[in-house]
Amino acid sequence: MYIFAIPYLRNMKKILLQTLKGEKTDRPPVWLMRQAGRILPQYRALRSSLSGFKELVETPDLAAEVTIQPVDELGVDAAIIFSDILVIPEALGLPYEMIKGKGPYFPRTITSRKDIERLQAHPDHISDQLRYVSDALKLVRSRLEPGKTLIGFGGAPWTLLAYMIEGEGSKTFSKARRFLVQEEQAAHLLLEKITKATITYFQAQVSAGAEVIQLFDSWAGLLSPQLYQKFGLPYIKQILESVDVPTIFFGKGAFYALEEMKNLPCDALGIDWNMRPSVVRQTLGGEYIVQGNLDPASLYGRIDQIEKETRSMIEAFGGHHIVNLGHGVYPDTPLDGVKAFVRAAQSYSYNR
Amino acid sequence: MYIFAIPYLRNMKKILLQTLKGEKTDRPPVWLMRQAGRILPQYRALRSSLSGFKELVETPDLAAEVTIQPVDELGVDAAIIFSDILVIPEALGLPYEMIKGKGPYFPRTITSRKDIERLQAHPDHISDQLRYVSDALKLVRSRLEPGKTLIGFGGAPWTLLAYMIEGEGSKTFSKARRFLVQEEQAAHLLLEKITKATITYFQAQVSAGAEVIQLFDSWAGLLSPQLYQKFGLPYIKQILESVDVPTIFFGKGAFYALEEMKNLPCDALGIDWNMRPSVVRQTLGGEYIVQGNLDPASLYGRIDQIEKETRSMIEAFGGHHIVNLGHGVYPDTPLDGVKAFVRAAQSYSYNR
Repeated sequence: MYIFAIPYLRNMKKILLQTLKGEKTDRPPVWLMRQAGRILPQYRALRSSLSGFKELVETPDLAAEVTIQPVDELGVDAAIIFSDILVIPEALGLPYEMIKGKGPYFPRTITSRKDIERLQAHPDHISDQLRYVSDALKLVRSRLEPGKTLIGFGGAPWTLLAYMIEGEGSKTFSKARRFLVQEEQAAHLLLEKITKATITYFQAQVSAGAEVIQLFDSWAGLLSPQLYQKFGLPYIKQILESVDVPTIFFGKGAFYALEEMKNLPCDALGIDWNMRPSVVRQTLGGEYIVQGNLDPASLYGRIDQIEKETRSMIEAFGGHHIVNLGHGVYPDTPLDGVKAFVRAAQSYSYNR
Repeated sequence: MYIFAIPYLRNMKKILLQTLKGEKTDRPPVWLMRQAGRILPQYRALRSSLSGFKELVETPDLAAEVTIQPVDELGVDAAIIFSDILVIPEALGLPYEMIKGKGPYFPRTITSRKDIERLQAHPDHISDQLRYVSDALKLVRSRLEPGKTLIGFGGAPWTLLAYMIEGEGSKTFSKARRFLVQEEQAAHLLLEKITKATITYFQAQVSAGAEVIQLFDSWAGLLSPQLYQKFGLPYIKQILESVDVPTIFFGKGAFYALEEMKNLPCDALGIDWNMRPSVVRQTLGGEYIVQGNLDPASLYGRIDQIEKETRSMIEAFGGHHIVNLGHGVYPDTPLDGVKAFVRAAQSYSYNR
């Protein structure tokens, strides 16, 4: 195929980038949140030989390898760098641990304004601390086959604040929400520092080869519309404005702010699995680029059922659509189900 | 006040019942989900003298005492029986434990159709197993001051199934959702048994003096609209239809099914704190009775702020409204904040 020899033409063939630019394509692009990880036997084999999750994240060659695994195994249209949203709190000075069967844990948390003032958000410091992510991105970019897009990512300020205050996962994150209500000024200072660090981090990711940036707000659904307006959206806006490549924003659970998210300076919005495509289209319009939103539990189903549900979803969004799940793929998802999902998207034709 | 001497007139003065019947009242009624519990010093004192949570739930005299505590201390317009939604799985044959700092835990879970077939849903068995709840309700009813309404409650079938399969709390309840997708028939059998037991349970609660029944679907927000349509709503409908007193249904996180919930045979709907009153009114209409929906985190705020936010919410719903939080009150909420919330609702006047 001669076109692969000419770099600028090669870029034009990247179906995810085409879709993010609003161009018409024959089929929707497809990838899965958390595609690099436990669903793949290759990942499990590598992971079992290592001391822990962080060794994988912080060793560029290994991170690059698991980033590329799903592209090789599943044929998805994009690779997303293998990392964690909690690298930002750590770079700011609050180290995290990943505890087996439990999730993230911070030995120290933010309890006062003093703790926040001590955090280091200087661009040089952040770039330096997170060089391992840039190094991994460079490796992936150099190895990624033509037509595949490299996605960088990070967590939105509210979600990172939530972990930094709470210190671990929580059903309600009530300690973090209490902080927003009782320590408004300190909360803003913390959100500013996270925002500043994230802007630096995304610039470094783009310099290292990330072609798309996805910003995840995992705990957006825990805030009231009022608190999200005040503590969530303004910082998200600042970050998205600063990124020079196409951006995708995923505010998990923020159904209540779909109108506001529509006006964010991003190129696409991630959509939860419990939002109806018809309602999304009604609010965003037919041309707005959306990503999602099959129920991750659907991939537990029979192959023919998965194919049918994937096609129905593609039809319901009716174009300008990046096929994905409505949340990260669950670790125990059968690989055949994941493959059926990818195949259903890639064999779909908008022209039939 | 002579009217308190005449029982039928006494009933007419119950502001929660008046509101649930669609009658006009001078102010909205108010109570809080989880009002009986750790927010009250009286509760903490009693609890610390006991062996565990279940001793409290299963000892009618103690359960009655903590049920009445918030009425005495906060002056709320209703008492809700102190119990747990997991008494139904236990009555069916699957005992639960309440583990400190962790939450509910099932030593045995449902793993197959055989496990489900073994469950005992016969009405006599269920009434017998849950006699302690009826006994507690009778005690509360006999002690409750005039004007206060007694609420009984239970968990919706999907939420109970989720715990019975998963065995404990979970961020995704993916094991339970996997069961719905892969074991559809067995899932329906389990939901039927839970439904049957819950119908018996609610009849017993009403016989024992419950004047309102609230059905909680804590994990509704984890299902896709399709799965909720199939595994959630039909069973909820059956249960609500069977209850002879006014009912409130609270499908937490089920924003995506507001239209469907509108058509359920209940008298009121509970509303999450992240749903906007304007959107709720748009979908349900101005006369539909709603309950909620202040952000529980608001009660961490300053007194004047709590009063202001409570009044704004009352105005936003504009009548036909039971003031409550959008979720259970958090255990570390300052008592003064809770009192300000109750006072703001009770001093509000629809006639000004």
